[in-house]
Amino acid sequence: MTDVPSIDPSTGEIAEIDYRSAPETTPEQVDRLCRAAASAAEPLEALGRDGRASLLDALAEALEGAGDRIVAVADRETGLGATRLTGELARTCYQLRLFAEVLRDGGYLEATVDHAGDTPMGPRPDLRRMLVPVGPVAVFGASNFPLAFSVPGGDTASALAAGAPVVVKAHGSHPATSQLCFDVLAAAATAAGAPDGTLGLVHGQQAGADLVAHPEIRAVGFTGSTGGARALLKIIEGRPDPIPFFGELSSLNPVVVTAGAALDRAARLGAEIAASFTLGAGQFCTKPGLVFVPSGDAGDEVVTAMGEAITSAAPMVMLNEGIAAAYGKGAGLLGATAGIEEAARGATDDDAPGFRGTPRLLTTTAADLPPEATEECFGPLTVVARYSGEAELFTALATLPSSLTATIHKGPAEVELPGRLDRRLRRLAGRILYDGQPTGVAVSWAQHHGGPWPATNSQHTSVGTSAIRRFLRPVTWQNAPAELLPEELREGYDGVPRRVDGVLRVGRG
Amino acid sequence: MTDVPSIDPSTGEIAEIDYRSAPETTPEQVDRLCRAAASAAEPLEALGRDGRASLLDALAEALEGAGDRIVAVADRETGLGATRLTGELARTCYQLRLFAEVLRDGGYLEATVDHAGDTPMGPRPDLRRMLVPVGPVAVFGASNFPLAFSVPGGDTASALAAGAPVVVKAHGSHPATSQLCFDVLAAAATAAGAPDGTLGLVHGQQAGADLVAHPEIRAVGFTGSTGGARALLKIIEGRPDPIPFFGELSSLNPVVVTAGAALDRAARLGAEIAASFTLGAGQFCTKPGLVFVPSGDAGDEVVTAMGEAITSAAPMVMLNEGIAAAYGKGAGLLGATAGIEEAARGATDDDAPGFRGTPRLLTTTAADLPPEATEECFGPLTVVARYSGEAELFTALATLPSSLTATIHKGPAEVELPGRLDRRLRRLAGRILYDGQPTGVAVSWAQHHGGPWPATNSQHTSVGTSAIRRFLRPVTWQNAPAELLPEELREGYDGVPRRVDGVLRVGRG
Repeated sequence: MTDVPSIDPSTGEIAEIDYRSAPETTPEQVDRLCRAAASAAEPLEALGRDGRASLLDALAEALEGAGDRIVAVADRETGLGATRLTGELARTCYQLRLFAEVLRDGGYLEATVDHAGDTPMGPRPDLRRMLVPVGPVAVFGASNFPLAFSVPGGDTASALAAGAPVVVKAHGSHPATSQLCFDVLAAAATAAGAPDGTLGLVHGQQAGADLVAHPEIRAVGFTGSTGGARALLKIIEGRPDPIPFFGELSSLNPVVVTAGAALDRAARLGAEIAASFTLGAGQFCTKPGLVFVPSGDAGDEVVTAMGEAITSAAPMVMLNEGIAAAYGKGAGLLGATAGIEEAARGATDDDAPGFRGTPRLLTTTAADLPPEATEECFGPLTVVARYSGEAELFTALATLPSSLTATIHKGPAEVELPGRLDRRLRRLAGRILYDGQPTGVAVSWAQHHGGPWPATNSQHTSVGTSAIRRFLRPVTWQNAPAELLPEELREGYDGVPRRVDGVLRVGRG
Repeated sequence: MTDVPSIDPSTGEIAEIDYRSAPETTPEQVDRLCRAAASAAEPLEALGRDGRASLLDALAEALEGAGDRIVAVADRETGLGATRLTGELARTCYQLRLFAEVLRDGGYLEATVDHAGDTPMGPRPDLRRMLVPVGPVAVFGASNFPLAFSVPGGDTASALAAGAPVVVKAHGSHPATSQLCFDVLAAAATAAGAPDGTLGLVHGQQAGADLVAHPEIRAVGFTGSTGGARALLKIIEGRPDPIPFFGELSSLNPVVVTAGAALDRAARLGAEIAASFTLGAGQFCTKPGLVFVPSGDAGDEVVTAMGEAITSAAPMVMLNEGIAAAYGKGAGLLGATAGIEEAARGATDDDAPGFRGTPRLLTTTAADLPPEATEECFGPLTVVARYSGEAELFTALATLPSSLTATIHKGPAEVELPGRLDRRLRRLAGRILYDGQPTGVAVSWAQHHGGPWPATNSQHTSVGTSAIRRFLRPVTWQNAPAELLPEELREGYDGVPRRVDGVLRVGRG
């Protein structure tokens, strides 16, 4: 049996923390965890919406209680810094409590009642539909958000809210953080009355594959690379019963600076975009990876400000050796691509220990946009594409892959052009931002974090309250005796919003 | 270029109707249709909810206007009979008008507004989300519902309602019906102001494959076999951008007759279940394919009544040569399986022309349920599994694949056993019926027609108002100027239900 080592990316050495490695989970252990999750499904659902809301609140409290220790361990394994990690933990706790609110509201059930009646097709039986938990879920932690898209995070929170037991595949880049968070969450879940098997954890790549293939697993939540997603999809297609796969994969996050915006605030725009693409060493799924800037003086000023913001920057600690190496290689290839030039780069320090990446700013032209510039390069780098006129801009936009976000920086008086950009960009992005930075994804009812492939692989979101929909499925009861129906579907129940005979009614809550 | 011939299954000859064949669509024609659909996407969306509601109403009216001709052609190609086909057309028209109602209601948009504000994670921007059309959709017609899951039907109606242009792959079993319906619908759509490219039609298997591979197609709706679905999924996985695939595939539809139900109404139950499994020559996706009947006298009486109902039945015209051959082979293999015995069969007539299937009733035991008995056999056949006691019953239920439906026939005073059956069966079915037959799927707000694979491949429905969700995707606008937002997301709009700052509000409608 091999171990997944805990590495400090700022030194490249084994991290000096309590857990120095995690043993790879054996196939027998994966099987046991999945069976335990299956056994937990019915009692977890039976806790009811209020019971699970209390469970989520208890999990948030437990994470906060262990916050200092969790942040310290996560910082050693990820190099992301205590400020960012403290914020990330706060985000996760907020998210758990928001899903508790979602449960108490109950609108997520989509409770619908059609009484028996006559239709032009003849008599209709009594039909009552709502969403029920999908069953045990596999969640794959991501490298870049050790506390918000990992053992704790949106996938785990939304699955538990739905009533689906979760088995997490820990990301190999932070095994100790994963184990620590799991230990904290599992103890809190037990104390809050959750059934055994509500939460499980596996380490190691093979264990992840075994998990996705396991017959008891009913859906997969994944945040990672397109290649990783394709590999898991292949396992899923090989199952006798392919299951839903919810992947959040790769995103270019194009940004358009209009001529009006450049004229209005070139220096500030350049500085803010630079701060966004280097935030967290550029390891955000919403990092702006391609920025369209108009040709001419105002546009020059934007690019100059971007360059100035990074030339003084030191090499940035990246999450792990593989990511740092891929960034170095990808940045090098981009820089060597015909039609792409380097505009600025941060300081280099060959003697710095650990895994580091130098911030880089590249430029190209929209009129002759190299395909290489339209692929995500994970790390502190962006490509500026200069455009001369709107025709050139729109032609270039039509060649872009889909993304999680698209950003429009517009001038104070512009309306017509932003409108056309909006209509074009929303075909390829799940979130359209105005005059802001795509990094930083608020958790709320109206948030959406998804988009056509490769942003995500379908129409779901990974952030926001509707993320719960991934781990639910509809069931309709036909002519069921009242006592066998879930209470939310019984006659006269008004604790949740319901659509009754076609008319939506808000619950008493 | 080859043609798809129009065959009358009651004779096996070329059907004597206006269209005797349809030419296979060439790759160039597929490409042209998909590009036309892409061009139609923006103007179709721009019709707005009211405009598309009027379009759907106009399509229903046009189908009704051509109803006699459509039914006559469909009867020649499918042998389903004028009564059934007239009902099927009424269903489709009802469905189109119900989706018009869905559009006017607007709740399907899931409009959500979060105003800017402070959160424990810091300031939150203004976020506004709703669902938008996914883009051009490919719809695969099914053999068994030429008017309700084909060129007209739930997939086309829900996609057009969503604002997604549709290119239909006609089922090779009824090319003339498909072409006629398309001609009626396309003319009505144009007259109602729909943009060119709103609706397209292709014939031929290769054209179907080309359609699914086409870059402009953004989602696929499919009703057909598991094998067909796997083949299309393979094409989708080979795309640079895999797209959502919504398949309705295969379903066993288990039925449980409790001891109490058998004691209460054995003869009637037997007759009704027999009528259900032979309805439409057993070619319903919700045909009851496995019926658990208690051992003992009352159970015997159920089986006897089922047998009596079919022994006098003549061979039934099936949809096409392939389906009739597969049925004959499948029924033969089942009958020859160890542990399965024949209880009854309908009359045979080797001289009858065309493609016919003999109704058959097979029996086996739940204690030793052969895996062959748990696979769908498309046609007028069911397997009765006799059980002795509840332990035997539940052990057998645990071996079943997932289904669209599961039915419980219970005794008048039974509560505890049906409750346990409900909890077990809803893990593997999307609709739980009490004391009724699964064939016949009402179209309504609360209906659900789906289930885990192989019933469907995910968590969607093919019938009912929420079928529209398949052809929509969420978009969130962040800090967007009011004039660039869809009207449903603007401040103060109250024409649709919206969730504002976490509180659901019913629209003024």
